[in-house]
Amino acid sequence: MRRIDNFKSIIDQYNVIFFDAFGVIKNYQGLVPGIEKTFAYLEQQNKEYYIVTNDASRSPAQLASSYHKLGLNVITPDRIVSSGMLTKEYLDLKVQGGIVAYLGTENSAHYIESSGLHTMPISEVNESNIDKVNALIFLDDEGFNWFEDLNKAVNLLRKRTIPAIVANTDHAYPVTVNSVSIAIGGLATMIEKIVGKEFIRFGKPDSQMFMFAYDLIRDHRPVSKKEIVMVGDTLHTDILGGNKFGLDTVLVLSGNTQPTDVETRITVTGIVPTYICDSAVVDLGGFNF
Amino acid sequence: MRRIDNFKSIIDQYNVIFFDAFGVIKNYQGLVPGIEKTFAYLEQQNKEYYIVTNDASRSPAQLASSYHKLGLNVITPDRIVSSGMLTKEYLDLKVQGGIVAYLGTENSAHYIESSGLHTMPISEVNESNIDKVNALIFLDDEGFNWFEDLNKAVNLLRKRTIPAIVANTDHAYPVTVNSVSIAIGGLATMIEKIVGKEFIRFGKPDSQMFMFAYDLIRDHRPVSKKEIVMVGDTLHTDILGGNKFGLDTVLVLSGNTQPTDVETRITVTGIVPTYICDSAVVDLGGFNF
Amino acid sequence: MRRIDNFKSIIDQYNVIFFDAFGVIKNYQGLVPGIEKTFAYLEQQNKEYYIVTNDASRSPAQLASSYHKLGLNVITPDRIVSSGMLTKEYLDLKVQGGIVAYLGTENSAHYIESSGLHTMPISEVNESNIDKVNALIFLDDEGFNWFEDLNKAVNLLRKRTIPAIVANTDHAYPVTVNSVSIAIGGLATMIEKIVGKEFIRFGKPDSQMFMFAYDLIRDHRPVSKKEIVMVGDTLHTDILGGNKFGLDTVLVLSGNTQPTDVETRITVTGIVPTYICDSAVVDLGGFNF
Amino acid sequence: MRRIDNFKSIIDQYNVIFFDAFGVIKNYQGLVPGIEKTFAYLEQQNKEYYIVTNDASRSPAQLASSYHKLGLNVITPDRIVSSGMLTKEYLDLKVQGGIVAYLGTENSAHYIESSGLHTMPISEVNESNIDKVNALIFLDDEGFNWFEDLNKAVNLLRKRTIPAIVANTDHAYPVTVNSVSIAIGGLATMIEKIVGKEFIRFGKPDSQMFMFAYDLIRDHRPVSKKEIVMVGDTLHTDILGGNKFGLDTVLVLSGNTQPTDVETRITVTGIVPTYICDSAVVDLGGFNF
Repeated sequence: MRRIDNFKSIIDQYNVIFFDAFGVIKNYQGLVPGIEKTFAYLEQQNKEYYIVTNDASRSPAQLASSYHKLGLNVITPDRIVSSGMLTKEYLDLKVQGGIVAYLGTENSAHYIESSGLHTMPISEVNESNIDKVNALIFLDDEGFNWFEDLNKAVNLLRKRTIPAIVANTDHAYPVTVNSVSIAIGGLATMIEKIVGKEFIRFGKPDSQMFMFAYDLIRDHRPVSKKEIVMVGDTLHTDILGGNKFGLDTVLVLSGNTQPTDVETRITVTGIVPTYICDSAVVDLGGFNF
Repeated sequence: MRRIDNFKSIIDQYNVIFFDAFGVIKNYQGLVPGIEKTFAYLEQQNKEYYIVTNDASRSPAQLASSYHKLGLNVITPDRIVSSGMLTKEYLDLKVQGGIVAYLGTENSAHYIESSGLHTMPISEVNESNIDKVNALIFLDDEGFNWFEDLNKAVNLLRKRTIPAIVANTDHAYPVTVNSVSIAIGGLATMIEKIVGKEFIRFGKPDSQMFMFAYDLIRDHRPVSKKEIVMVGDTLHTDILGGNKFGLDTVLVLSGNTQPTDVETRITVTGIVPTYICDSAVVDLGGFNF
Repeated sequence: MRRIDNFKSIIDQYNVIFFDAFGVIKNYQGLVPGIEKTFAYLEQQNKEYYIVTNDASRSPAQLASSYHKLGLNVITPDRIVSSGMLTKEYLDLKVQGGIVAYLGTENSAHYIESSGLHTMPISEVNESNIDKVNALIFLDDEGFNWFEDLNKAVNLLRKRTIPAIVANTDHAYPVTVNSVSIAIGGLATMIEKIVGKEFIRFGKPDSQMFMFAYDLIRDHRPVSKKEIVMVGDTLHTDILGGNKFGLDTVLVLSGNTQPTDVETRITVTGIVPTYICDSAVVDLGGFNF
Repeated sequence: MRRIDNFKSIIDQYNVIFFDAFGVIKNYQGLVPGIEKTFAYLEQQNKEYYIVTNDASRSPAQLASSYHKLGLNVITPDRIVSSGMLTKEYLDLKVQGGIVAYLGTENSAHYIESSGLHTMPISEVNESNIDKVNALIFLDDEGFNWFEDLNKAVNLLRKRTIPAIVANTDHAYPVTVNSVSIAIGGLATMIEKIVGKEFIRFGKPDSQMFMFAYDLIRDHRPVSKKEIVMVGDTLHTDILGGNKFGLDTVLVLSGNTQPTDVETRITVTGIVPTYICDSAVVDLGGFNF
């Protein structure tokens, strides 16, 4: 049996902490109880930290605001790296003009807009404007009619040879303690298989997410990968991606991976975290501080 | 370049003809023009024929009736082998009692019902009856709310260890000359991947479809596979399945496979039909009859 | 926790028993201890039985002989249905003349030969005879040089549009209590992916294996699928295949599936056997006979 | 029909050029004829350039030396970014001590060695040292016995929960105008499937390759992705990877992608290069220089 490590002792050894959001800082009920102590400790110790999240449903400002509403005011927009940000960077660099059709909420599309690009829900694509569509983005599983619009996405990609970008690689996400919802990444994979084309995906475990956060640090100071630890609840996104990028990794058991099957899951997948902790909560009891 | 064969000369060499339906006998506009001549010829020559189709949306009686409405009265229910029939046989043999939840139209489910089995649209599955659900069937892409009911299917399979049966393996089907719709087989594959379980699929290229038709003949007389030829428009269902079952095969160019890329498609997939014909229409011009 | 059933009570309810070979009747050390009692009981009760095995390394006569050497004399060649037999039937029906190139031992190829067909180890295919090669068969993981001949198989399939037949779908097989070997099915899947063509596979869980055994019975008497039970040690071949064909199924814990993880494996895969037994050994203790 | 662009006009618009090696600069016969003019032009124009290559068979120094032997002396080791370099960085950061078992030539392993790490061909792993093996690397398809050592790799990964790193993602590579060889990436994918674990892969189209080259530039000066163009002959590695990283891309028709099917391949895959050129040779005819 693998040992359970003390989270505080771990972060004491690193200068920068990357956190996954869902299952680590928050869950479907709100904040993970006690997580505010972790951020208070990080602030006190002058540690740098970032939220690295597969989420393209909202802008960093809106994501930060959602933490503030839960009482976690230290999470500012500049602390957040989302797969939506990578999608926006891709569009800025690679799509010059025209329409970007999307599947998702209006809100998710608003953030993607930039000079020269016009976003349009796929429901509004028609014979008169289809030739101006230069990309299709999969942003969120909400905000559209699945039957109408998924079929429309298939036919758009059959008619136009344009890049299809998946802004969230997750196939499902938890909505209550016992149930999940199909995520936009799952819908996109179905459509990719039907049309037979190769889609572009942004999100963990892909290195580009970690690189984006890494570059945010390097913009203001030199940093080595050895100073950084990635904290996540999911082996095949957070831990696999962190390991591959060369970071040390902490698997926490407060989300996707259960204490009862952590050992089996590690053996079966071959994805090994550097550490395992019950949660990312720093316990500042008198005895250990 | 491969030669194009004469369809009449081919069927003259066989006693039994298996036909795919869509792209061979009918298309999105109705009957393939002239196909009634083929069936008149088969009747006159006392050839046996069957329609072998990936379709679980209707009963054989209803499928036959749809041909009658188009003016093709010779297609009787006993001539039809559908993936829906295999699903029904599976349920009869393997599911004893309880509820069979389904995704599809009411009509598609009606045919599946049999003594002791109660079908129920997945939308009606709830906390009070979920423990009585003993199978989930994917019948048709219509008749349900994709957003609500696909998510419900995922959670049903996470809570209950029951067989999931896919009654149509196609991932998409044509609806107009230029557009397709996502088929129930495509939706089922997405859900299979999300829940990580192994689904049971009925439909070409699987041998069970061909065996079912083969057994219909053997019920009344001995037959060798060498007497049968399979006619279809799709390499990876009709031709691959027919070849694997040991039948000679005819690829017709009136549906999925275009004359301009038939050569490339055969080379790329490695799926080689015994013959290639423009269509399954028998040309009874004076010179060759 | 699922109940463990008594094997004798189960087979008492059926007229025909299909057995997987490896992990059920024999293992890497020889016969499963006590299995001879099972066959003595079946003979005494006049039950019909067949061995349904993914094995193309030897002819049915040689497979039967291997049981005789172990002391199990009741297993006669006509009791054996192997994936090699399906491969032979395919070649007889579908390949008219020319050379059949193969990967495997000379012995495995000898059985496949028939009038008009000439088998040739792929190592002997060269510029002068390559145009006469009309099929490639994957028979066994032994009998050839992996480096030379796997590369040669890739290039043969790039140059010739011919069927590639995989006569054993297994990807690995046990050789000692702790180690496995890569099987010809695993090598074939790698080559299929590299050349991008669609191969033809014979072996469980495919229905064609079960149909072949089912037809052997029907050749001499009518039989219903309800009279037959399939006994195997592997969920995704024996149990999935048996279930799909409409048979009741027994998972035995004497091979691939361990008692400690049978519950997890069933839940994770969604493949549910009708019964679970420790082994296929009939215990004829005084109290129950 | 897409237009064919002039390579010189393209590189005139960028400050940094990334080149794929095989199919762009060299092929199985040696240098691509005339390619030395391209590098002379780049030197004259003070353009920066890098070779970004899926190759872990040799060190950058040895790769550079192989160009010198062909007469291309400008390619220095610091111009080369290989998937082997990423593998080395991973081992330096993530594997502390112990043995790194490998499949490949002695030469390929030598470069990977570093302080504290001991490389060992998998053929030498045995009962006495297996517990010290902390990683398995797939480096090259040569230098080992496929039958013995691929089976040994499978069993090593079944016994030890350690990272498996694939240092070259290619599944096959050309050896003559008409034939290919199975690459180590193809062998690794087979083993990954058999053992069911998730391997770590370094090589295009993964962003980490491009990021490594990008960082080499940023070490000495600021650079924007808009200043860089990626030149390659393969859609799903060079072009897909370059596009995803946010670079403009040039598909050249001197390697994997043929002039006759470039249009089809782009439409089928949905991978669209910014430009298409016959080759990466700069034609310095009097009229355009």
